[in-house]
Amino acid sequence: MNTDIHKARHSLAHVLATAVLQYDPQAKLAIGPATDTGFYYDFELSKKITDEELPQLEDTMREILKKGFTPECKTVTYEEAKALFKDQPYKLELIESINADGEKITVYTLGEFVDLCEGPHVKESNDIDPQAFKLTSIAGAYWRGDENNQMLTRIYGLAFSTKKELKTYIQQLKEAKKRDHRKLGKELDLFTFSPLVGSGLPLWTPKGTILRNAVIDKIFSLQKKFGYQPVTIPHITKKDLYVTSGHWEKFGDELFKVQGQSDTQFVMKPMNCPHHTQIYASKPRSYKDLPIRYTETTMVYRDEKPGELLGLSRVRSISQDDGHVFCRPDQIEEEFAKIIQVIKEFYTALGMFKEDLYWVSVSVRDPETPEKYIGDTATWDKAEATLEAIAKKEGFPYKVVEGEAAFYGPKIDFMFKDAIGREWQLATAQLDLNMPERFNLEYTNKNGKKEHPVIIHRAIAGSLERFLSVMIEHFAGAFPFWMSPVQVAIIPIAEEHTEYAEAVMEELTKKGIRYEFLPSTDALGKRIRETHALKVPYTFVIGSTERENSTVTVESRDEGKLGELSLEEFYKKIEYK
Amino acid sequence: MNTDIHKARHSLAHVLATAVLQYDPQAKLAIGPATDTGFYYDFELSKKITDEELPQLEDTMREILKKGFTPECKTVTYEEAKALFKDQPYKLELIESINADGEKITVYTLGEFVDLCEGPHVKESNDIDPQAFKLTSIAGAYWRGDENNQMLTRIYGLAFSTKKELKTYIQQLKEAKKRDHRKLGKELDLFTFSPLVGSGLPLWTPKGTILRNAVIDKIFSLQKKFGYQPVTIPHITKKDLYVTSGHWEKFGDELFKVQGQSDTQFVMKPMNCPHHTQIYASKPRSYKDLPIRYTETTMVYRDEKPGELLGLSRVRSISQDDGHVFCRPDQIEEEFAKIIQVIKEFYTALGMFKEDLYWVSVSVRDPETPEKYIGDTATWDKAEATLEAIAKKEGFPYKVVEGEAAFYGPKIDFMFKDAIGREWQLATAQLDLNMPERFNLEYTNKNGKKEHPVIIHRAIAGSLERFLSVMIEHFAGAFPFWMSPVQVAIIPIAEEHTEYAEAVMEELTKKGIRYEFLPSTDALGKRIRETHALKVPYTFVIGSTERENSTVTVESRDEGKLGELSLEEFYKKIEYK
Repeated sequence: MNTDIHKARHSLAHVLATAVLQYDPQAKLAIGPATDTGFYYDFELSKKITDEELPQLEDTMREILKKGFTPECKTVTYEEAKALFKDQPYKLELIESINADGEKITVYTLGEFVDLCEGPHVKESNDIDPQAFKLTSIAGAYWRGDENNQMLTRIYGLAFSTKKELKTYIQQLKEAKKRDHRKLGKELDLFTFSPLVGSGLPLWTPKGTILRNAVIDKIFSLQKKFGYQPVTIPHITKKDLYVTSGHWEKFGDELFKVQGQSDTQFVMKPMNCPHHTQIYASKPRSYKDLPIRYTETTMVYRDEKPGELLGLSRVRSISQDDGHVFCRPDQIEEEFAKIIQVIKEFYTALGMFKEDLYWVSVSVRDPETPEKYIGDTATWDKAEATLEAIAKKEGFPYKVVEGEAAFYGPKIDFMFKDAIGREWQLATAQLDLNMPERFNLEYTNKNGKKEHPVIIHRAIAGSLERFLSVMIEHFAGAFPFWMSPVQVAIIPIAEEHTEYAEAVMEELTKKGIRYEFLPSTDALGKRIRETHALKVPYTFVIGSTERENSTVTVESRDEGKLGELSLEEFYKKIEYK
Repeated sequence: MNTDIHKARHSLAHVLATAVLQYDPQAKLAIGPATDTGFYYDFELSKKITDEELPQLEDTMREILKKGFTPECKTVTYEEAKALFKDQPYKLELIESINADGEKITVYTLGEFVDLCEGPHVKESNDIDPQAFKLTSIAGAYWRGDENNQMLTRIYGLAFSTKKELKTYIQQLKEAKKRDHRKLGKELDLFTFSPLVGSGLPLWTPKGTILRNAVIDKIFSLQKKFGYQPVTIPHITKKDLYVTSGHWEKFGDELFKVQGQSDTQFVMKPMNCPHHTQIYASKPRSYKDLPIRYTETTMVYRDEKPGELLGLSRVRSISQDDGHVFCRPDQIEEEFAKIIQVIKEFYTALGMFKEDLYWVSVSVRDPETPEKYIGDTATWDKAEATLEAIAKKEGFPYKVVEGEAAFYGPKIDFMFKDAIGREWQLATAQLDLNMPERFNLEYTNKNGKKEHPVIIHRAIAGSLERFLSVMIEHFAGAFPFWMSPVQVAIIPIAEEHTEYAEAVMEELTKKGIRYEFLPSTDALGKRIRETHALKVPYTFVIGSTERENSTVTVESRDEGKLGELSLEEFYKKIEYK
């Protein structure tokens, strides 16, 4: 994180509070932190505020900045703090908490405004560009996020280092809104939600299922040459499996508990690895049998809070394109190389594996919270060094990022930029030297001795829901040919051309090409508009000329009119799409 | 059910009790009903009994039959009953229950033995063939099936109308034991269970997953021409969906309840139809859009009691090859015809769709328990008549079976005989005129008015787990070529033939044929035995002659040695398998 902009955002929250107190001197102040793109502050107001007032508030903020200030920090006693904030009930509540935790109480003065605050802040008001922030919206928020508490008014702002950055971000937001996968998902009829089924549980329509399967099949075909074997597991397990794996302790509230008529505590799987270990463990293995590579695209379940659910980006039923390689320590590098090759080929097919459009995170432990990880330090050190060596050898632009490891081992995460410049973590390969020991997985080595294999966890698309939310927005619904639910729209000009259109469709079926037929009962113009709205890669218009010449007139979504083509010519055209 | 044999089985239970009282006059008697293949009786014995004593007990039973009896039924008062069974605590407990329910108390006298009993029994002992029954085993059983109660001794017997039938059934049992899918599943490495995951939750290995997918793909390819569209749903839902559908009330204890961190009551789906209705309901439908045919092979979850779980035959995670057709009433017959065609083609590919090997059950309501079904009588009458007309029109050998309907509509169920003469209900097609109304599903008809569509529920294999348990036993693990996890075993005679063997495998890969390579590090004889044990349809032995002639020497599992063949000749050989 860029610390300077974080400080500026935090100081802007205080400036916002100062401005709000000018607008409503009775306002009670709650909290006002920096966010990843700006800041917010929560208030209990005595007079209503609307979006219309935001520009005026912004002006007040700019006046405060113009006047200038130099933030000052001071440690105060419990009594001093209580006296300072005697009219601010939320601050008094916070002071009680800080005091109860035995921590020191600090206040920051920015100009005329004093706030209970830990900092950090800018050195002086000149560090903030008065043209690089913007108040964006007003929302309700419960005090301390608890719906039993008072509802407060939250004012959000954006803030960047420069006016240009702010403008770019606002432009990106606008573009993102147009591409919103929830809106496009409905327009393209890809998925739906039902209030009877519940939020975070998408239902995939026929077209959405084609899209999902195109991704699954692509990954399957890319990794087939590396010997991955599909397996099939149930979606629940006895709690015992996760007590052994450590998920029971680590996942906590996110686990869905399942109860039948017996006393047995079942759990919905939030991960597939523990189940897959039990297939590995089902018979004796020799060093000659390794690597064993299991793959399965299957749903895992995690209980996200309703407020965190968002379209396909954050769901409760997550389809993972999962894979687990059980191998010997001397096979780690080769197996990572194979996984990386699949990742490269897959994201190349999406046009995303390009310089400056991706980087690799070597995700390691947070050295300050060792209790979050299972296994001993020496094993972790070795695993982390191995992954960094692999990233280096592959020549990736990589960074070592602390605190991003899984609880069982370090990861190589692939970060990709989408068409409007947003960054997403998509593919991942994780080295696990801990789980095999916990499950006592074994193989017999060359000398007849038992050893633990290593597990490599890998996902190419990751969660299909999240991946497709990114892809729908990245492509704005105009998917590459191989992913498109409908690849060709068939439009006979008039009723009399239907028979020839049917012959064309029969040929397309043989080639495995997905088409949609738009019958001549609707007007031609309406049908053409419909294929545009559905973002179909190719449209075949079929009339008397085409019938006579055994051709079709092709319009490409991306390249415009291609004219009259024979089917053979068309196939050649799409060969590498 | 054949009533005569049922009566004979029931009377034999009483004869068994008479014989046991001679062996142990202190024995306390619990209950002794008829079963589908014989009878049992539960006792609290004062002296231990073992399998060795069973022939002696059988002899005693035959003596009792020889002596002869004519069963007599008598209604007695509560006081008379208590006096009659004063030394029999279990009978006294039953008497209290009967009395509390206000029902009349009857006793049956068979020879010297008087039992509390509702009947029915044979007219006289001569109706029982003394050579057509056999005591088979001793097991523990809790009084009233409750593990908090006294453990009793249960003695099981088989009984049929004739000695020949008994012999046939015992032979079938022996053959079934050899073919037991749990044993073969382990030998062929198809699936496994883990004590950490829990019983009734199979984990499918790579080979088992190939077997599953072969079945799924076969059904998919057969029904593709009829316009089925895959959809994808999550495995859980809010309870609300099943309150609407009626499953919440009907499924009761079998539903797995799911709880996250919120108050929302989630449930694991025991069925897919309610979820699929929500995809149908996600946009307006016109009469021109129908039929809409959704298909999905997905797991449903039902909480069977641990004691009822058995290998793959009875599991908690059930993979359904499900399909739902939403159509207009005038399309019912045509859609049923299409489903029936898929069923015919699929079971023909398994060699099971043959005269005398199948019959069709037109499964209708039980007229005595109308409360078990949703919807009105007129709708049901119509639906049942429609299905019988379809069965008649198809020329099926069919029976109308009362009480076998689903709670939402009547069914056509296909019953198939396996290789050892056991009958299984496999495919099903169900007409549902009720669920569309409950979910208020609609389409706009020709006149612009809203109407409810009809739903046809259909499964070709049914539960894949149960289906495969039947198939593993039916084929005794020697699957048809298209289903076999390994289709060809590749055996190079010596190390020097490995290179040519690899060239052969490359060709097989191109053809999509699944092979397993058995390297020359093991002895030839051992490898041949292994392919026999794995029941691989074809074995290629590859040596110098084959390399020179560009051939392979083929042994067929079913047809024996086929000699040297070119790959082209081999492909021709398997073309229709």
